[in-house]
Amino acid sequence: MTTPETRQRRFRTRLAGLVSYLGLLVAGILGFLAIQYFGEGGSAQVQATVAAKANSHGLDVVFHVLATLSAVVGLGYLLGKAFRYLGQPPVIGEVMAGIFLGPSVLGAISPDLMHQLIPTVDVDPHGQVSSALKMIAQLGVILYMFVVGLELNGNKIKNHIHSAVAISHASIIVPFLLGSWLALWLHQSFAPEGISFTSFALFLGVAMSITAFPVLARILTDRGMESTRLGTIALACAAADDATAWCLLALVVGIVQTQIQDAIAVTLWSITFIATMIFVVKPFAKRLCYQLDRGREALPESSIVLAIVAALLCALTTEVIGIHAIFGAFLLGAIIPHDSRLAQSLNKYLRDSVTVLLLPAFFAYTGMRTQIGLVSGWENILICLAIIAVATIGKFGGTFAAARYAGINSRNSAALGILMNTRGLMELIVLNIGLDLGVISPTLFAMMVIMAITTTIATSPILSRLIPKAQLEAEAGESEGLHEPGQTVAAG
Amino acid sequence: MTTPETRQRRFRTRLAGLVSYLGLLVAGILGFLAIQYFGEGGSAQVQATVAAKANSHGLDVVFHVLATLSAVVGLGYLLGKAFRYLGQPPVIGEVMAGIFLGPSVLGAISPDLMHQLIPTVDVDPHGQVSSALKMIAQLGVILYMFVVGLELNGNKIKNHIHSAVAISHASIIVPFLLGSWLALWLHQSFAPEGISFTSFALFLGVAMSITAFPVLARILTDRGMESTRLGTIALACAAADDATAWCLLALVVGIVQTQIQDAIAVTLWSITFIATMIFVVKPFAKRLCYQLDRGREALPESSIVLAIVAALLCALTTEVIGIHAIFGAFLLGAIIPHDSRLAQSLNKYLRDSVTVLLLPAFFAYTGMRTQIGLVSGWENILICLAIIAVATIGKFGGTFAAARYAGINSRNSAALGILMNTRGLMELIVLNIGLDLGVISPTLFAMMVIMAITTTIATSPILSRLIPKAQLEAEAGESEGLHEPGQTVAAG
Repeated sequence: MTTPETRQRRFRTRLAGLVSYLGLLVAGILGFLAIQYFGEGGSAQVQATVAAKANSHGLDVVFHVLATLSAVVGLGYLLGKAFRYLGQPPVIGEVMAGIFLGPSVLGAISPDLMHQLIPTVDVDPHGQVSSALKMIAQLGVILYMFVVGLELNGNKIKNHIHSAVAISHASIIVPFLLGSWLALWLHQSFAPEGISFTSFALFLGVAMSITAFPVLARILTDRGMESTRLGTIALACAAADDATAWCLLALVVGIVQTQIQDAIAVTLWSITFIATMIFVVKPFAKRLCYQLDRGREALPESSIVLAIVAALLCALTTEVIGIHAIFGAFLLGAIIPHDSRLAQSLNKYLRDSVTVLLLPAFFAYTGMRTQIGLVSGWENILICLAIIAVATIGKFGGTFAAARYAGINSRNSAALGILMNTRGLMELIVLNIGLDLGVISPTLFAMMVIMAITTTIATSPILSRLIPKAQLEAEAGESEGLHEPGQTVAAG
Repeated sequence: MTTPETRQRRFRTRLAGLVSYLGLLVAGILGFLAIQYFGEGGSAQVQATVAAKANSHGLDVVFHVLATLSAVVGLGYLLGKAFRYLGQPPVIGEVMAGIFLGPSVLGAISPDLMHQLIPTVDVDPHGQVSSALKMIAQLGVILYMFVVGLELNGNKIKNHIHSAVAISHASIIVPFLLGSWLALWLHQSFAPEGISFTSFALFLGVAMSITAFPVLARILTDRGMESTRLGTIALACAAADDATAWCLLALVVGIVQTQIQDAIAVTLWSITFIATMIFVVKPFAKRLCYQLDRGREALPESSIVLAIVAALLCALTTEVIGIHAIFGAFLLGAIIPHDSRLAQSLNKYLRDSVTVLLLPAFFAYTGMRTQIGLVSGWENILICLAIIAVATIGKFGGTFAAARYAGINSRNSAALGILMNTRGLMELIVLNIGLDLGVISPTLFAMMVIMAITTTIATSPILSRLIPKAQLEAEAGESEGLHEPGQTVAAG
């Protein structure tokens, strides 16, 4: 088809095109130069081309935020892979990446390099970089809690409620009491000035009673245990634990933030909000989801936007009430039926972008505030070990005793105890709130972060010992193999 | 199955459970009260329960950011729907929502209500709320430009390059020259002090030459024109326009931000960066995408994380070079093969969450800075009209003339001209950069925002007149119906 003539013609067309294009370009440049000549001549400011710097403080917030984000996302992914290889949930790697990039590791090795990410106070006097990171982190955590709420399977919990409720409450009350008992020793040295014993003890109690529902779910899924009876009970307990602990935390925040006469108002508003959510919003959400599920066509975009705006508004409401924004987002998530198409689409929309992009800002922000170096000297190290011990004894012990009481054999009770001891990301959220409120000192914050990481890391290997994979497979069939009568295996 | 005995037994179990649970609860509360008694007695601080307020300035940044975000997402969605109903692209509604919530409308009606969203300077002296919004907006715009780059179809542009390139360049050079010519008149009154005529004229030129590629694509898709020959040429021109305009903008930013000796360095670094992207990163990305496409299994998560980190790093690089962060993200997006699975997954991952959640922060931030009230008095209104006229004459005229020259009939040339006059979101991004750099005054910013909205709104109705739906369907078959010979239809 391509005869020499066509080829020649095509070449000529291209040449003509090129010539006319170059002509245009030259005309354009000449035209601009002419205009420039008149303009600069007219205003006689040739020397001042340069004056206005983009940022008068010389601080490029975008640079620092982008640098920190890409560092923590990249390193977090690598460490997450590494921890995954060691049989740990990847979130540990991401938390570690945040701490690594903060003053604890990078700041100790090369302060200059760390200040490339987080500038010093004299470069950034108003803390613009950290407050930008904090805001992205807050948005990430709010949306993440919304997603966690969406993933809560209310029905599954209800089915196991009778075996789960006693275990769950024991696994909150025991560590809560031990935590507040620990406060007797720690209040003098680790409570910032002006923080009453009550606030401090309540906060320590809550911080000890957290179980990381999402990390727990991840560990169970990784081990193929999520639909065993043990797995289901663990999930139900963790969900009940988290819900209770968040309510307690809301109470603590309310008490710390307000005058005593206001505390009553906060409580009343909180109850009103929760009641409205359960008795007004929940039936509405259920009906809406039911209608959406019946429709054959794709989910309308309006439902997604509505849900996201609703999540922001609920977060806003609880923030206004005085019990932290994440609480409202979580509650709305928990109210939307878990298996509806709306919940699944929202999950798909938000989960990945939130965990890959926004949540890393939270890890970076947490890492920035964690100064492991503060935990130095024998006394502090001993206190840190004591915190880990008390947290584990409370959570493991409480769960184990209640599970034994409920008739579960000791090996499985121990497994349940160790699962409930997983604190993960949730604990970090609580600790950051505590540090924001000024209820705990930076040193205690660092100790509690170490405790959260240690208890989370401990879960997988101990669980492997207690319930080897082979055993798990053998058990998969017989769903009642969990209880005492048939087999009595000593806890490993 | 449920005999009275089982029911009774079940009741007894539940009762026992309830009793033990209540027992636990009471024990818990009593235990805490006991600990509290000792603790408060010991440190004697009962009265001080309250002291530490969460935020010593009384400013709740989270509250304001959440309120602004939910208002702009909600209102933007409603206005988007309304504008869609009027045959306009929804982005107009979202931009309007931002302006509505800012000083132009809400601030004029009820300053108090607006300050619930954006607090006044005495409440928020360091502008924490606006800088938090700005950072979320920046992140949104960077990721959005990455997605826009991903959607660029390089091959489609290449296929039409010969007809498109002349039109595209004419449609940049003419408005660019007219824009800088306009600068002769506007420099005296609208350039902030210390801004040279060259910077001002270059910036005005670039701002006039922007075509909003994404909005254009949306309009074409809405009208079912995206695969007609006219649609393809328009898309190819717009893509070439955008790429050129961003390069020009990078040049302007480089010139404004740096000393003259630095400008050479900025240029060299920019060329090095672009060359590295095209000759090193592009082949690598192509090979990677090819390998990923060959694999049968699901796309590994690592490729997504790698791409997002790469996008952040490219943004960071161009920010460091001194030519705005969005440029790097856009370039990386454009380099990743448009039809690869990686590009499609990234698009799916990011598009919705970025447009629904992060980009609204940009609309809010832009709206916050737009003071339509500044455009008052006959003189200003006339100047604003002149800007709209010059922008339209430049873009429409340049495109029309070049299209006629390329042998396209006058009706289609007019249609192409009006399509290229769409400025949409891209223009707002450029204007915000100009305001950040201090190249334009707030008044000129407001005028240019009005120009961007007007030219975008004008596109759809004029296009409907030029190319009625019926005509479009009749033409869909004959792909060469665009050119002169057969039919000579006068432009409507």
